Amino acid sequence: MGAFVGIIEKIQSSNDIKKLSPEELEPLCSELRAFLIENVSKTGGHLASNLGAVELTVALHRVYNTAEDRLIFDVGHQCYVHKIITGRRDRFSTLRQYGGISGFPKPYESEDDAFIAGHASNSVSVALGMAKARTLLHKKYDVIAFIGDGALTGGLSYEGLVSAAASGEPIVILINDNNMSIDPNVGGTASLLQKLRIKPSYIRFKQGYRELFSYMPSLYSFNHRAKEWVKGKILPENMFSAMGYEYIGPVDGHDVHMVERVLRWARDMKKPVIVHAVTKKGKGCSFAEEHPERYHGVGPFDPVSGEIFGGGECFSEVFGKTLCELAEKDERIAAVTAAMASGTGLDRFALRFPQRFCDVGIAEGHAAAMVAGMAKQGLIPVFAVYSSFLQRAYDMLIHDVSLQKLHVVFGVDRAGLVGSDGETHHGIYDVNFLRSVPGMTVLCPASFGELRAMLEEAVTRIEGPVAIRYPRGGEGDYRDVCTEDEQIVREGTDLTVVCYGIMINDVLKAVRQMEEQGISAEVIKLNKITYAKFPKVFASLEKTGRLLMPEEVCAIGCVGKHLLAQASESGLHLQAARFLNLGDNIVSHGSRPQLLCDFGADADAMVRAAGEMCRQ
Amino acid sequence: MGAFVGIIEKIQSSNDIKKLSPEELEPLCSELRAFLIENVSKTGGHLASNLGAVELTVALHRVYNTAEDRLIFDVGHQCYVHKIITGRRDRFSTLRQYGGISGFPKPYESEDDAFIAGHASNSVSVALGMAKARTLLHKKYDVIAFIGDGALTGGLSYEGLVSAAASGEPIVILINDNNMSIDPNVGGTASLLQKLRIKPSYIRFKQGYRELFSYMPSLYSFNHRAKEWVKGKILPENMFSAMGYEYIGPVDGHDVHMVERVLRWARDMKKPVIVHAVTKKGKGCSFAEEHPERYHGVGPFDPVSGEIFGGGECFSEVFGKTLCELAEKDERIAAVTAAMASGTGLDRFALRFPQRFCDVGIAEGHAAAMVAGMAKQGLIPVFAVYSSFLQRAYDMLIHDVSLQKLHVVFGVDRAGLVGSDGETHHGIYDVNFLRSVPGMTVLCPASFGELRAMLEEAVTRIEGPVAIRYPRGGEGDYRDVCTEDEQIVREGTDLTVVCYGIMINDVLKAVRQMEEQGISAEVIKLNKITYAKFPKVFASLEKTGRLLMPEEVCAIGCVGKHLLAQASESGLHLQAARFLNLGDNIVSHGSRPQLLCDFGADADAMVRAAGEMCRQ
Repeated sequence: MGAFVGIIEKIQSSNDIKKLSPEELEPLCSELRAFLIENVSKTGGHLASNLGAVELTVALHRVYNTAEDRLIFDVGHQCYVHKIITGRRDRFSTLRQYGGISGFPKPYESEDDAFIAGHASNSVSVALGMAKARTLLHKKYDVIAFIGDGALTGGLSYEGLVSAAASGEPIVILINDNNMSIDPNVGGTASLLQKLRIKPSYIRFKQGYRELFSYMPSLYSFNHRAKEWVKGKILPENMFSAMGYEYIGPVDGHDVHMVERVLRWARDMKKPVIVHAVTKKGKGCSFAEEHPERYHGVGPFDPVSGEIFGGGECFSEVFGKTLCELAEKDERIAAVTAAMASGTGLDRFALRFPQRFCDVGIAEGHAAAMVAGMAKQGLIPVFAVYSSFLQRAYDMLIHDVSLQKLHVVFGVDRAGLVGSDGETHHGIYDVNFLRSVPGMTVLCPASFGELRAMLEEAVTRIEGPVAIRYPRGGEGDYRDVCTEDEQIVREGTDLTVVCYGIMINDVLKAVRQMEEQGISAEVIKLNKITYAKFPKVFASLEKTGRLLMPEEVCAIGCVGKHLLAQASESGLHLQAARFLNLGDNIVSHGSRPQLLCDFGADADAMVRAAGEMCRQ
Repeated sequence: MGAFVGIIEKIQSSNDIKKLSPEELEPLCSELRAFLIENVSKTGGHLASNLGAVELTVALHRVYNTAEDRLIFDVGHQCYVHKIITGRRDRFSTLRQYGGISGFPKPYESEDDAFIAGHASNSVSVALGMAKARTLLHKKYDVIAFIGDGALTGGLSYEGLVSAAASGEPIVILINDNNMSIDPNVGGTASLLQKLRIKPSYIRFKQGYRELFSYMPSLYSFNHRAKEWVKGKILPENMFSAMGYEYIGPVDGHDVHMVERVLRWARDMKKPVIVHAVTKKGKGCSFAEEHPERYHGVGPFDPVSGEIFGGGECFSEVFGKTLCELAEKDERIAAVTAAMASGTGLDRFALRFPQRFCDVGIAEGHAAAMVAGMAKQGLIPVFAVYSSFLQRAYDMLIHDVSLQKLHVVFGVDRAGLVGSDGETHHGIYDVNFLRSVPGMTVLCPASFGELRAMLEEAVTRIEGPVAIRYPRGGEGDYRDVCTEDEQIVREGTDLTVVCYGIMINDVLKAVRQMEEQGISAEVIKLNKITYAKFPKVFASLEKTGRLLMPEEVCAIGCVGKHLLAQASESGLHLQAARFLNLGDNIVSHGSRPQLLCDFGADADAMVRAAGEMCRQ
């Protein structure tokens, strides 16, 4: 850490940044970059986007005081420099670790984090709400939304932009346009931004700004004709100005002095303003600049060579490979992603079947409605999406897919606890919301083999909407392949342990310990958890009279309670029933084993519960 | 019906429309208007928007064959003329009635209805999915999305527009711009459309078109210079063209010949095209033109004077009035709606507290994120929204509101069965999805008095997110006011009937009949249904040993199963338990009593179930 003795050491808050001389800013940015690479290489995290946002973040802190002004990060994965600047440098080695600082803004961590972040495109909406509160409650602070071009593909950001422009509230929206988070074929905003970016006036505009801004702020306020001239020359008519914004841009987002001046100007306009900054993802780090997608969210890596450590095969890869094999045989199969082609393993499909692949950008609702249209006209669409992002499409699952019983396959990736991304990313609600969609079949593979078999079944044999939920990462000790609805994994007499998905690994560990304590557990794994009768479970419960069900989901809508109610309704009364799950809690970041332990849903907790139940 | 012998009688399909001479089109449109007014005055329905869409619909059928081409209605409330044209004129008197034709497009009703509709802004996404299917499966049909300016405020439509433009798929998007479905202050797209609408070239353009289009289609294909001239003169650069569309407009949407020509031209371009038509909502009916919002969704009325029949006080009105009273006392209270100011009873609030009121347009996700920002900074925001539209904001309820435990009040209107709007509008999922949001309190008033009391409690005393769910329409015989969590309405010994909300009326009717049959029922009404212990229910179940719970929701996530599981988990074993609800079914349109009867959840079904349980 010796390398980082320097300007960075003086910085504990926005105020400290403001005390620096202009000459110190560029060296500070270099130090911040070195610090980022050094640390993220150990902890893993979002490297490339943070390297791209160094100057923007420093400039924001030059102009605003984030302890009082409200800076709303969109997605929030680019908040590292902000965290380093606002008193969390010393704890930066704990980034994304259990008990350490989060990889996303968290108000419980610091008053400088104005709002939670994790899901995309909400920043303008949140900022507008805050700006309204400020005005109605007669407060003075400034409000800024900091949003990437990727998040601008989300319709939510459009709704926010429309509404904020209409409000007339003083608010600054800083667009970090790195032209990277969007697949080239996504179009729309991307092509609009690109047009703005490459227009011939860009360079002249940049040069003009340097002179202009030295006398601009006051001039702008007082001289209407100058204002009109500036608008005509520098602020061209575009979508943003049509909406009602003052549009300033594009500015070079790595020119920290320029960005500072522009932000100051935007702030002082006291109206809705868009500042459009162009940056390079991975800036200042050769391997991250070259492969920004690889160093977007990355595990530990070698800080010099960039070599990424570890990482065996994962469920997402198996999903992508299997889908390719199925697509070879049936040309009706099409694959859709919402800006997660590599995360969901669909990158392989995209290369092999480019015509049948579609990345819609961060637009889960649109993806779900679009696949409904595809299915209605005879395709077999497969939409691969992270569980927690699928929450965005809940209405479309019902309205567009289910009501017409359309055969759409949802690959629900990152189901269950996701680890270091924390509370905004855990996939712990889907079991409830998917099961509530009429006619939806929900399959839960526990091994790569089962994922392969179930995906084939979902695509080729099941009718109506189907979801296959599988976790982040790889398989455990359980490697069998069974696709029966209910699977008796192990016979026993004292209690019935029911589970689904990779929880089987924890259960098998637990029942071995139970056996040592003289408890004979019957283990039933559910491969399909949707509304149906569960005859094997019931037969087992008749025998044992005790039900233990560990689940990696929130308590409401857990499958266990449904089973119990069904048993009770049909006159089967149990001696004891215990449900181990995440309760009604908000689950922070940390490893899956650690979190399951904390919430009493790991193998040890199962053994304890079994002991208590069998002693009853 | 004698008045409607005329051209309208010849029309049974798109093909019949095509056989008409151009001279017959205007008379046909007049006949269609008279038919609409005559019929909707009896059945109720969406009058004003259908009157405004007559010429557009006729022109669509001149150009397309909807039995094969895919015409996707957005929202779908403007599909009446389409239904009249496509063989459903004779059944039009059954509109929105139980067993009759739906007020929205329904593929199960006719092959001319390409897709279900009801929720806004999905049409472009669905159309794109269909266009992709068409291309990948080598079919020939055309795909058209028909969308109002109101639905364009939804971010989903933006996602669809971006994606469709990027795809390059031949697809026509017909915008029905009546400048009415959007509140004037909504801005954004509205202001963009308005700019296009009033630009000086509009009139000239209109005149120019008449000459131009007589030789245009062929000219356009062959003469690049003419094309560029047209684009430069007539198709100005705007948001749509920036996205990658050919933009044609604005055209007078009541000039049926012009619209037909433009649509033909758009269709033949074989690329993504926007046709922007300007219409007048309520066109041709003086009272509907004057008060289009009053005749948007309307009950039966006098076809001559426009006088609207019936309609007592409803929960929405009580909600709006009560909120005004609370806002008088606390200036932190703000109200938000997503394009439903009058539907949710907030029109009164909007007049009285314009600064503290916000209509965001059809943008539920944005509204939910915005109120989160408002709450974070000290306001007490109240978002009034229909239950089925709140499905659009499920992710924001978790991500933006719940994870920070923010005090936002959701007025969940139209909870339960909504009657004639049917399957896309029933509020039968919210009990499940609201209860799954960590920390959400869900209150269920059953009378106006309880709504007043609970709204005050929600706004002034409860912490964290709160939802109050109340039904469409007015209160029943139950008029008491009780806000205890659990309320023993009536004591009994044989079984415990548990319910919440206005179902209490049906329950009280049922228990009187049970009494006649010698069954003594204890009735407990839940006023709060969120995760908690229910000691009074449990004490009652200890006594009676039997649980009967009728609910106006889908089976998954019904409260009854949760109660039963909780009872069973705590060692309380029942003799019998029965849950009467809507199952895993798709629930069509019809009156609440009729639908409850069909699904076995009305008073008679309760009496039958009680008899069976008590004989066990």
